[in-house]
Amino acid sequence: MNWPEHGSNPQYIYKEMKISKPKNLIDFSANINPFGPPGILKEKWSELYPEIYDYPDPHTLILKERIAERENVDRSSILIGNGGSEIISLIGRMLAGKNVLLIEPAFSEYEKACNKNGCQIFYHHLKEPEWELDEKEIALKLKGMDAVFLCNPNNPTGIRYPHSTIVKLLKECKQNNSYLIIDEAFYDFLEDYIPIAPLLKDYSNLIILRSMTKMYAIPGLRLGYVLAGKHIIEKLSDDQPHWSVNILAMSAGELCLQDDRFIDNTINFIHTERERLFSFFHREAFVVSESSINFYLLRDPLEKEQMPFFEFLLRRGIVPRHTYNFPGLEGKWLRFAIKGTKENNRLMEVLTEWRQLP
Amino acid sequence: MNWPEHGSNPQYIYKEMKISKPKNLIDFSANINPFGPPGILKEKWSELYPEIYDYPDPHTLILKERIAERENVDRSSILIGNGGSEIISLIGRMLAGKNVLLIEPAFSEYEKACNKNGCQIFYHHLKEPEWELDEKEIALKLKGMDAVFLCNPNNPTGIRYPHSTIVKLLKECKQNNSYLIIDEAFYDFLEDYIPIAPLLKDYSNLIILRSMTKMYAIPGLRLGYVLAGKHIIEKLSDDQPHWSVNILAMSAGELCLQDDRFIDNTINFIHTERERLFSFFHREAFVVSESSINFYLLRDPLEKEQMPFFEFLLRRGIVPRHTYNFPGLEGKWLRFAIKGTKENNRLMEVLTEWRQLP
Repeated sequence: MNWPEHGSNPQYIYKEMKISKPKNLIDFSANINPFGPPGILKEKWSELYPEIYDYPDPHTLILKERIAERENVDRSSILIGNGGSEIISLIGRMLAGKNVLLIEPAFSEYEKACNKNGCQIFYHHLKEPEWELDEKEIALKLKGMDAVFLCNPNNPTGIRYPHSTIVKLLKECKQNNSYLIIDEAFYDFLEDYIPIAPLLKDYSNLIILRSMTKMYAIPGLRLGYVLAGKHIIEKLSDDQPHWSVNILAMSAGELCLQDDRFIDNTINFIHTERERLFSFFHREAFVVSESSINFYLLRDPLEKEQMPFFEFLLRRGIVPRHTYNFPGLEGKWLRFAIKGTKENNRLMEVLTEWRQLP
Repeated sequence: MNWPEHGSNPQYIYKEMKISKPKNLIDFSANINPFGPPGILKEKWSELYPEIYDYPDPHTLILKERIAERENVDRSSILIGNGGSEIISLIGRMLAGKNVLLIEPAFSEYEKACNKNGCQIFYHHLKEPEWELDEKEIALKLKGMDAVFLCNPNNPTGIRYPHSTIVKLLKECKQNNSYLIIDEAFYDFLEDYIPIAPLLKDYSNLIILRSMTKMYAIPGLRLGYVLAGKHIIEKLSDDQPHWSVNILAMSAGELCLQDDRFIDNTINFIHTERERLFSFFHREAFVVSESSINFYLLRDPLEKEQMPFFEFLLRRGIVPRHTYNFPGLEGKWLRFAIKGTKENNRLMEVLTEWRQLP
């Protein structure tokens, strides 16, 4: 099969599976905030129009300033990117030809970017269904590694690793002269996030990736950033095409950062929905990952192969994310975003149908 | 001096020149359509809003289809990019370590992209003030060259090179096994453009760059594309980050391509304004490049150095584009966009003031 590389754009999965696309479908394959973008974006939308006929600021100064204040870091420690995927590409180039350790399962773009740049790739597979992170086990594999990629909270499992483990791993990496690249694309969905940006002062090997498209539900605009030491930022920025961040992404980013209540409301809503969904799953004997955020892995343990289950859902207009390109998962799980109440209800309805099949 | 690399964002040139920015200024430094974007974009603006909370199609299929029809090429011959500058970066990577000939003066991003990728750069300097292109002279320099960059119509001069010269140069390049990369970012401002896309069939060494942000005045959105043989497109596309083209750029591109009258009206308007401005310049003894499009180079031949002239204009709120980073020009000229009637009038007023200085 020639699986689509990512979620969203469900037409591609229907095409690949040779299933005709139902008229009504609910896309659970993209991990974005079910609230949609903060209200302020819609309010200001017509004011943003005239911006399109000016070039973006190639240095993205205002947005950098906002993030610098928020994260309490220097502006020189920030690079804004055309979505997280551009930043991962830039990091891939920086690591060209190096030895890289991927902690799997993880977002597939790390592997892709490293592969493209001729890195030697090594894997550390966390064990399902807990996917526990033990820094001591990883430390044993660090020798000769120039960089380690870790996704926390993890995509695709939704599991968050404790702050103390992160700090220990960061120390191990520093002693070993390896970068630790922590992708925090979903950090703002956590209820009790402990910031790691303050660690940048003592750990010049730390690189933090952030996305603004998940929490603020603006994946169409593309916006992400990286926090790291000045020397790393300069290296990455040197490879970034001029005007890479479009002007609407920049302005939307500036507006979104003004609305902290939006994040709190999102976290509360996701919490409630997650509890509701998870008790249903446990009741109906589905297995789920111990997610702390807005998506989770699910499988039906009563089936040996998940494919018939996946097909059934697609035919019913429920679109999960396949996991065939997550090393270690290889299709044994399906990933679902937590969506609005109505959509989550519909999911439970369809899962009930599945359970009741003769 | 640490000159801004490009026009637009006038704050940077005022900062560098240590001149306080006047309250009212007219930015002649960005070469975009003075009409602003086609009306249909403003009409549909609120309908575009919901698109931001979906991921863009990573394969940009619909826009590719539109361009394929328009250019009468196969979809596999097109790559859509996050602005022309992303495409130039991708081409730079493709040419890593190769020998590259730049026909100067030209858009500065070619040199930057080639430099970053360790290319050996050679120059062919066209002679001012005609900047004539003689393919025989270039042919003498082709030996050992893997690629030649040509900007036609040329940025920064606005001069267009005849179709017959392009075809002859393309043949020379083919015989020599060199790519000919023709940047046509401003082709749609020409009154009598002869398409070169049909040459792709016979010349697998031809690479055509296009921008959609100049004619359609959407530089804030970032949108460009490349036309080339399938093998080249695959190579470039392989290095492009996932979801690189944002969803608004894509939708705006689709809408803009529906409005051909917009281009005709633009061409007519620019023609009238260019004639009006150029007769003023000739009358007032300014020297200008023989532009066929929406911008031109200008200098005051009565001054040895153009710096005091540049400063005078900036203080009066007229912002030209400096030419310090165009090899061969090095500040001896200033580049101006053709703007609206009012703005062009104001320019002539200020130039008259300059002429009348004691």
